Amino acid sequence: MKMEVKNGDSQLLSKLATNNEHGENSPYFDGWKAYENNPFHPTKNPNGVIQMGLAENQLSLDLIEEWIKKNPRASICSPEGVNAFKDIAIFQDYHGLPEFRNAVANFMGKSRRGKVSFDPERIVMAGGATGANELLMFCLADPGDAFLIPTPYYPAFHRDLRWRTRVQLLPVVCESSNNFQITKKALEEAYENAQKANIKVKGLIITNPSNPLGTTMDRATLRTLVTFINDKQIHLVCDEIYAATVHSLDFVSISEVVQEMEDYCNRSLIHVVYSLSKDMGLPGFRVGIVYSYNDIVVNIGRKMSSFGLVSSQTQHLLASMLSDEEFVNEFLSESTKRLASRRGSFTKGLEQVGIRCLESNGGLFCWMDLRKLLKKPTFEDEMGLWSVIINDVKLNVSPGSSFHCHEPGWFRVCFANMDDETMVVALRRIRNFVEKGEDAEVITVKKQNKACQKTLSLSTSQICDENVTMTLSYSSPRVISPHSPIPHSPMVRART
Amino acid sequence: MKMEVKNGDSQLLSKLATNNEHGENSPYFDGWKAYENNPFHPTKNPNGVIQMGLAENQLSLDLIEEWIKKNPRASICSPEGVNAFKDIAIFQDYHGLPEFRNAVANFMGKSRRGKVSFDPERIVMAGGATGANELLMFCLADPGDAFLIPTPYYPAFHRDLRWRTRVQLLPVVCESSNNFQITKKALEEAYENAQKANIKVKGLIITNPSNPLGTTMDRATLRTLVTFINDKQIHLVCDEIYAATVHSLDFVSISEVVQEMEDYCNRSLIHVVYSLSKDMGLPGFRVGIVYSYNDIVVNIGRKMSSFGLVSSQTQHLLASMLSDEEFVNEFLSESTKRLASRRGSFTKGLEQVGIRCLESNGGLFCWMDLRKLLKKPTFEDEMGLWSVIINDVKLNVSPGSSFHCHEPGWFRVCFANMDDETMVVALRRIRNFVEKGEDAEVITVKKQNKACQKTLSLSTSQICDENVTMTLSYSSPRVISPHSPIPHSPMVRART
Repeated sequence: MKMEVKNGDSQLLSKLATNNEHGENSPYFDGWKAYENNPFHPTKNPNGVIQMGLAENQLSLDLIEEWIKKNPRASICSPEGVNAFKDIAIFQDYHGLPEFRNAVANFMGKSRRGKVSFDPERIVMAGGATGANELLMFCLADPGDAFLIPTPYYPAFHRDLRWRTRVQLLPVVCESSNNFQITKKALEEAYENAQKANIKVKGLIITNPSNPLGTTMDRATLRTLVTFINDKQIHLVCDEIYAATVHSLDFVSISEVVQEMEDYCNRSLIHVVYSLSKDMGLPGFRVGIVYSYNDIVVNIGRKMSSFGLVSSQTQHLLASMLSDEEFVNEFLSESTKRLASRRGSFTKGLEQVGIRCLESNGGLFCWMDLRKLLKKPTFEDEMGLWSVIINDVKLNVSPGSSFHCHEPGWFRVCFANMDDETMVVALRRIRNFVEKGEDAEVITVKKQNKACQKTLSLSTSQICDENVTMTLSYSSPRVISPHSPIPHSPMVRART
Repeated sequence: MKMEVKNGDSQLLSKLATNNEHGENSPYFDGWKAYENNPFHPTKNPNGVIQMGLAENQLSLDLIEEWIKKNPRASICSPEGVNAFKDIAIFQDYHGLPEFRNAVANFMGKSRRGKVSFDPERIVMAGGATGANELLMFCLADPGDAFLIPTPYYPAFHRDLRWRTRVQLLPVVCESSNNFQITKKALEEAYENAQKANIKVKGLIITNPSNPLGTTMDRATLRTLVTFINDKQIHLVCDEIYAATVHSLDFVSISEVVQEMEDYCNRSLIHVVYSLSKDMGLPGFRVGIVYSYNDIVVNIGRKMSSFGLVSSQTQHLLASMLSDEEFVNEFLSESTKRLASRRGSFTKGLEQVGIRCLESNGGLFCWMDLRKLLKKPTFEDEMGLWSVIINDVKLNVSPGSSFHCHEPGWFRVCFANMDDETMVVALRRIRNFVEKGEDAEVITVKKQNKACQKTLSLSTSQICDENVTMTLSYSSPRVISPHSPIPHSPMVRART
């Protein structure tokens, strides 16, 4: 590719194109770069970096594959289903295929254990949860307005919620002392700070289950939030894209609380973001959903969904798959079972070497407490430790600072984007690392800090950190995900 | 659906959600409403409205269906192709599947008759041309900045280019006296007017082939435009989504001119918008492409494409289909042949009743000159005539005013979204209408003007305007496109 940009060209572009507010300049994505430069492969690159920074759910895709084999008519691109090709290929109604909306509403209900139902007329399509979150911001807030957001939170929210909408995010500080639960006091404090700074607060956005914590909010907390936003007459956006990853039976969707508090809250202030990227493990399909209790938002949101409609080919397939009640029931039951089992074996493996995670019941990750490995409780030390983990231990985990956590020493570790054998390797690496001894580690961190950062951005060489003899067989040669051959920008995936 | 919006709620939403700048309040979309309320069907509703307001290309979808039957492995959702399911379903790299980008670049070259080649590294994905155009505006202009745009232009550009980006569109007035060609004088005038009004002009956007004119720009005009934007140091966005609909051999892509003028122009100012919605007839698949000669735009555009990625299921299918050289060659050749034939028979039918269209060689529509049917050359009379055409003649055509045409009496009529038999009915209706006599028509227009407008928005009854005995057989019961059973918002399609 010839480089065509001449000096000074950037001044002819927009501020958006040149201000770096897209948020990719974060350690969260730097870790991905390190992985991309040296990806682990059980036989071809056994000393490569294992990707534990990607909240992907690969554990139940075989169930979907089985369904596809049995239902070739569900695809418009199979000889059995091609007779529907024309009607579907030309379909671009921004309301979506009615059968798709019905099926998604049905799936949303089932993934909330059938305790609440969803009206297909309130389902708005968007390009993944990425697009859904942006769409809601465009509907709810003007440039300069703010949304409150509890910390720690998903790094790419800076892109999704702020970048093109020019909306501000104001942190609601949550702390480890109460397991990062949101308190009324912290909410009020954040709100008052905004008022003092003359910033108009238009709403509160939460992720439930939380990314990165993996925890869910109890009913009382959700009621507190609804009361809070109702008192202030601001919006509540609930990102529930991990709803079906919860293995305990007590997940409470905001929609249940809306039902219960009908007489006490203005429903039109409440909006749910959903997606099939996490619960079904289909991020490539770009199914994002806004479910709003506000009619204007449904109406305007549909107009906005023109910018990120779900491919009609994908709508058609999912309409068929998700209206198969038997399949959906089995998938949800089996998927949560497998996730719980994986989470259990991973946290158990960590516990055996003295590493504790925040107690969680959802998500595709753990919130790992490595505070005792820091010599000083500073973000500098956190970054030093992180560099060692990536460069020496060769695991891409994500430092808490990239999630805007206010306490150093926490790391998000994803566990559902790999097979059992890779997980075994990852745990073995952690064990080797920890068994070197805590003091030695801290010294290593300090010594290697600067050198590691250099390695991180430039490294293409592969340094052996262990001698693992892999004799396991793999069903797929690509255990993580496919990539183009050229080194890519770090945020190569739209949403994790 | 319960109506949950309470009084005063709209004040809690954004300006975008409440200012109606989405542009759906246009006769262009009102006509769609009329069609939605009473859609023509050869047997079930032979007196319904025929949709001629939709630039859809249905003429060659059978070729794609044939290909699918022969290539079941190309789909990840067929028993033959499901072994690729997992890798593709989890793929969300915003650079796109390398094989998809290669295939699209190849198709773009072929659809420009192989006279120019496209670099896959410059291909940026977006959610249809709708998303591609918005993405470019976000990259090139700040809120309040302006793009020049020749009239008449595509009505939904107000949504695509302006709505969420807050960019202005300033008309470059083109006139029938020179067949609506863009002149240097008109360009300079528009630019100077902007300067006088203290508006920062960031670029010029053209559609080539033109929507709604169906004409293409010759090399000399394109060179004039490139010189103009180079002199002013502003951007040129060329929307070429109808490139392969051109039946003459002389279509000149801006990319050819870029090659020729390499030494005289700053390539980084030039950006192409492409799509498979028109040339392949696949609007439901939401394949929008930004092809930029500017490296920063490619880089930032890819980050923005996170909001409107093409479904990996769709990418995978198209990668396979569009890398089949034999298929692509045959499809392009046959498709342009069929479009030319349809255009020819349609315009010939119109000529037989004395209706002339602007001479054109591309697009999925004609620019029909009904000026002589207006008593006075006013937009009021144009709207009156349009009401008669929709309500009495029962054809949804689009009035020139909705395309921001500066001369009343022109209408865009789409001809590729229906089968031959429906086209025969449409032409018969036009003939009956015109043969009633010109004077009578104008009187009818005047008399019915107000009544018709009322009918337009409220009508659900079906008035017989003719007695057509249809004995033809139809291959598909739904000749237009599928719709949900409820009356929809007019702009149900993302882009036409």
